Amino acid sequence: MHTYDLTITTFLERATDLFGHKEIVTKLPDGDLHRYTYADAHERIAQLAHALDDFGLDAGDRVAAMAVNHYRHYELYFGPSCSGRSVHTVNHRLPDEHLVHLFNEAEDRLAFVDPQFVETVEGVADELETVEQYVILDDEVPETSLDPVVDYESFIAGYDTAYDWPALGEDTECGLCYTSGTTGLPKGVQYYHRKVFLHTLMHGHTDVFAVGEGDTVMPVVPMFHVNGWGFPYTATFYGSKLVLPGQHTDVASVAELVDEEAVTCAAAVPTVWIDMEKRLGDDPEGVLDSLDRVLIGGSSPPESLIRKYDDVYEAPIYQGYGMTEASPHLVNTMMTTEAKSLPEDEQYDLRMKAGIPAPGVEIEIHDESGDPVPHDGESRGEIYARAPWLIDEYYERPEANEESFTEDGRFKTGDIGTIDEYGYLDVVDRVDDIIKSGGEWISSIELENEIMGHDGVEEATVISADHEKWQERPVAYVVRNDDSLAEEDLRDHLLERFPKWWLPDLFVFVENVPRTTTGKFDKKRLREDFDDEFGTLPHEG
Amino acid sequence: MHTYDLTITTFLERATDLFGHKEIVTKLPDGDLHRYTYADAHERIAQLAHALDDFGLDAGDRVAAMAVNHYRHYELYFGPSCSGRSVHTVNHRLPDEHLVHLFNEAEDRLAFVDPQFVETVEGVADELETVEQYVILDDEVPETSLDPVVDYESFIAGYDTAYDWPALGEDTECGLCYTSGTTGLPKGVQYYHRKVFLHTLMHGHTDVFAVGEGDTVMPVVPMFHVNGWGFPYTATFYGSKLVLPGQHTDVASVAELVDEEAVTCAAAVPTVWIDMEKRLGDDPEGVLDSLDRVLIGGSSPPESLIRKYDDVYEAPIYQGYGMTEASPHLVNTMMTTEAKSLPEDEQYDLRMKAGIPAPGVEIEIHDESGDPVPHDGESRGEIYARAPWLIDEYYERPEANEESFTEDGRFKTGDIGTIDEYGYLDVVDRVDDIIKSGGEWISSIELENEIMGHDGVEEATVISADHEKWQERPVAYVVRNDDSLAEEDLRDHLLERFPKWWLPDLFVFVENVPRTTTGKFDKKRLREDFDDEFGTLPHEG
Repeated sequence: MHTYDLTITTFLERATDLFGHKEIVTKLPDGDLHRYTYADAHERIAQLAHALDDFGLDAGDRVAAMAVNHYRHYELYFGPSCSGRSVHTVNHRLPDEHLVHLFNEAEDRLAFVDPQFVETVEGVADELETVEQYVILDDEVPETSLDPVVDYESFIAGYDTAYDWPALGEDTECGLCYTSGTTGLPKGVQYYHRKVFLHTLMHGHTDVFAVGEGDTVMPVVPMFHVNGWGFPYTATFYGSKLVLPGQHTDVASVAELVDEEAVTCAAAVPTVWIDMEKRLGDDPEGVLDSLDRVLIGGSSPPESLIRKYDDVYEAPIYQGYGMTEASPHLVNTMMTTEAKSLPEDEQYDLRMKAGIPAPGVEIEIHDESGDPVPHDGESRGEIYARAPWLIDEYYERPEANEESFTEDGRFKTGDIGTIDEYGYLDVVDRVDDIIKSGGEWISSIELENEIMGHDGVEEATVISADHEKWQERPVAYVVRNDDSLAEEDLRDHLLERFPKWWLPDLFVFVENVPRTTTGKFDKKRLREDFDDEFGTLPHEG
Repeated sequence: MHTYDLTITTFLERATDLFGHKEIVTKLPDGDLHRYTYADAHERIAQLAHALDDFGLDAGDRVAAMAVNHYRHYELYFGPSCSGRSVHTVNHRLPDEHLVHLFNEAEDRLAFVDPQFVETVEGVADELETVEQYVILDDEVPETSLDPVVDYESFIAGYDTAYDWPALGEDTECGLCYTSGTTGLPKGVQYYHRKVFLHTLMHGHTDVFAVGEGDTVMPVVPMFHVNGWGFPYTATFYGSKLVLPGQHTDVASVAELVDEEAVTCAAAVPTVWIDMEKRLGDDPEGVLDSLDRVLIGGSSPPESLIRKYDDVYEAPIYQGYGMTEASPHLVNTMMTTEAKSLPEDEQYDLRMKAGIPAPGVEIEIHDESGDPVPHDGESRGEIYARAPWLIDEYYERPEANEESFTEDGRFKTGDIGTIDEYGYLDVVDRVDDIIKSGGEWISSIELENEIMGHDGVEEATVISADHEKWQERPVAYVVRNDDSLAEEDLRDHLLERFPKWWLPDLFVFVENVPRTTTGKFDKKRLREDFDDEFGTLPHEG
């Protein structure tokens, strides 16, 4: 009973029809700014689609994109998808064996590659079974063994700047992204026109991120990471000016770009904003003036950081919670009327949490037998989610589907959370990282946050170690910024907040904590290292 | 490839789960306020659904609701629809013959009727072929010939306050509303769960009406008129406090209710806000303090009114343009960054226009041969629209479909508009009301707005009269507030803005202008009256 299919072609057409003059600005490798408009972009996207036709790419075929955030990558978000193909955004930091697996599984026929990643691709090219053409995202081809190879500008040159976009069914795949899980091979997540449309419509809601035409949006988060959290789509649909930082994601460059282009809304992982705070301190001197909100995801920011951005930088931090499977958005820190009526300190307690489910999202927490857990702010359970933009299955991974979806189709996120009386979700750990000690749960995340709250600590992570009597016990890896810091200091610090049985059995002081390709602490590797070095912790009484 | 059906049950569940404590406030007939929460409402909606089960209402069956804006009417928005039936909202102002037609065509099995409309229904009850039960929306049954009849409270009493809402397909009808067109029988417009979901998600967008949980929303526009412009749904999905004025839609009551309940966002036709301005003048004295935006639809407000609400009441007026077929929203007056960069006077010119298409809406203007017309702010054409929430056909009216939809599925609105270089749509007339004088178009709406801009005029309307030589010529009906006003004064006034050939051939001074059941000038009746009295205008040289 409906003839209107929800497709991302609508985004492109609306941007051109109403906001064709609005800009997309890219910081190029040499630091210069590339500027063009949505109307310009549409013309080149049309040329790209013609080039794909000419190449012989069929409906449903995929192209790979391995690139940082820039205007050519933006064109790849629409050219393939709006002409009925799909773009597979590739995380260049993955190990070679994973890269080979996912190129082959996705059956990418073309690979669009940034010059700086050519070497990475050369390293695996022999094993790529389906790639017929490499396209370098530049106006020339560097010295390379990749073959056949062409530069992007030559690839699209000479084609018509108009394209008669096909009427696509809304359940057509428009993108593919692999989750870089901490265990096993990455799993493919397919994005569909309908789901991206719905995610984008939600994204601009006044109680979500309220992205509108008046905003200047800068996704610092990589465009290969869950579609830059959806912001390139969101900016396009609403006609917001879009700023893409290229490879310049260091704090100094981000601050400079915010000021030069009057960015109002910037999205990045917390470390960017933590480093920004270290750089700016208490005297931002006219820096970040245009910024009126900072969107973060991936993990919760410390309260001190939230207060600093509120009071000193006047660019409040809003969290989002989600994942690759959810396009990514599920929950964000809106402050409800009820929350705003609480004393300031309690409001900050809520600001530290992930927040309130976005319109259309259902969130529930469940114990190990699948029963719902009370919403008392204390009881923990695995977070199950349902949303119009969540996947229903992984790409060609039936065994993963079985463990990740309930019988009634809800996604088991693998995250542990609490929900309080105000409806705020707090994400306290990963199912895989929770420490099950003698039948009780100890949160590795809460422990490591508290350890990192000590002035003498640079960073820290907590893993579970096998234990003869208690099954599992916590072990902390700590990077000190003060060598005089002793285990005893940390134990005293933790006892102020946690019962004695929560305290790690062992504190290991290290030079740095290994991270995954997406910048998270690599607990899997630490657990393996620990196993090799210490094995099972003994019961000593 | 999607298992998540978009349904309005989601609105109800979200409101209860997250905002169960938020209030729905109704002004009762006696002036008292009825207050309860979304959680309370959900319980009674569940009881209503059980009562419908018990009655034997099947999936897909319809119930009629003939009521003003109050909490029981609100319950009828969800009880039937979320349990797989549909609610047919009835305009009580329709003539008897239309009421009979639409009750019978809709095959309503139950009729829920406000006490004050019982007499109206009694007048047609003998001809209603499908109604098996009347339910009076009160806690007692008045003296009535309706039979069988029961009061609403008895109808739902004693049932379980929880209901296991069925998983509905998104293309299930949830509502039915008849357009009160100016010609012929009203046409049925079916609302579907999917379309209402999409309309509601759009409605809260920051560039549309930005309705959020922090708002207190008051639809003054009747809930039988395009679902109260969608606001009851919007408030529910986002957990906004909802204020329903009952039958108290006079200006004094509306102002009082805004202040008592701290309404932030109120929606009504322009006449309410024009009358409000007459009442408040330049010294609102603490009235409307909470109001931060006024949403209007149906026709454009005069610039003086927009300025008054901006500067004196600090409650800016935002227009929406739409229609029953579009749920109703298509276009609204957002001020783009480009518009905001214009001189103030030019900004007000844009504020007078309908505005910018909402995300997902495509608007184009076409000449009589169907060709697109330039976007120069001058060229006029019929407005064609496409939107995810627009109907694809009228209910059982194939002949109306043929004239109202293009071959590629776009809706021909019957409105005449211009689109300017900034993308702003201005609705200048109805196709049926435009005056075709010697091959040129004269806008009846522009003429009447200009006439109403004269200080001596209370209200005015302009119709087309048949003319021997020019085919059609304008005739003005004018209500004076100053009896000394002469035709010559109005002619001089109009010549300041229009060429001589635009001026009406005749000015008829009347005591009042007849209106349709939805409060618009009844041009159809005036044309008939004119025909009877004057016939065809002669060619006098």
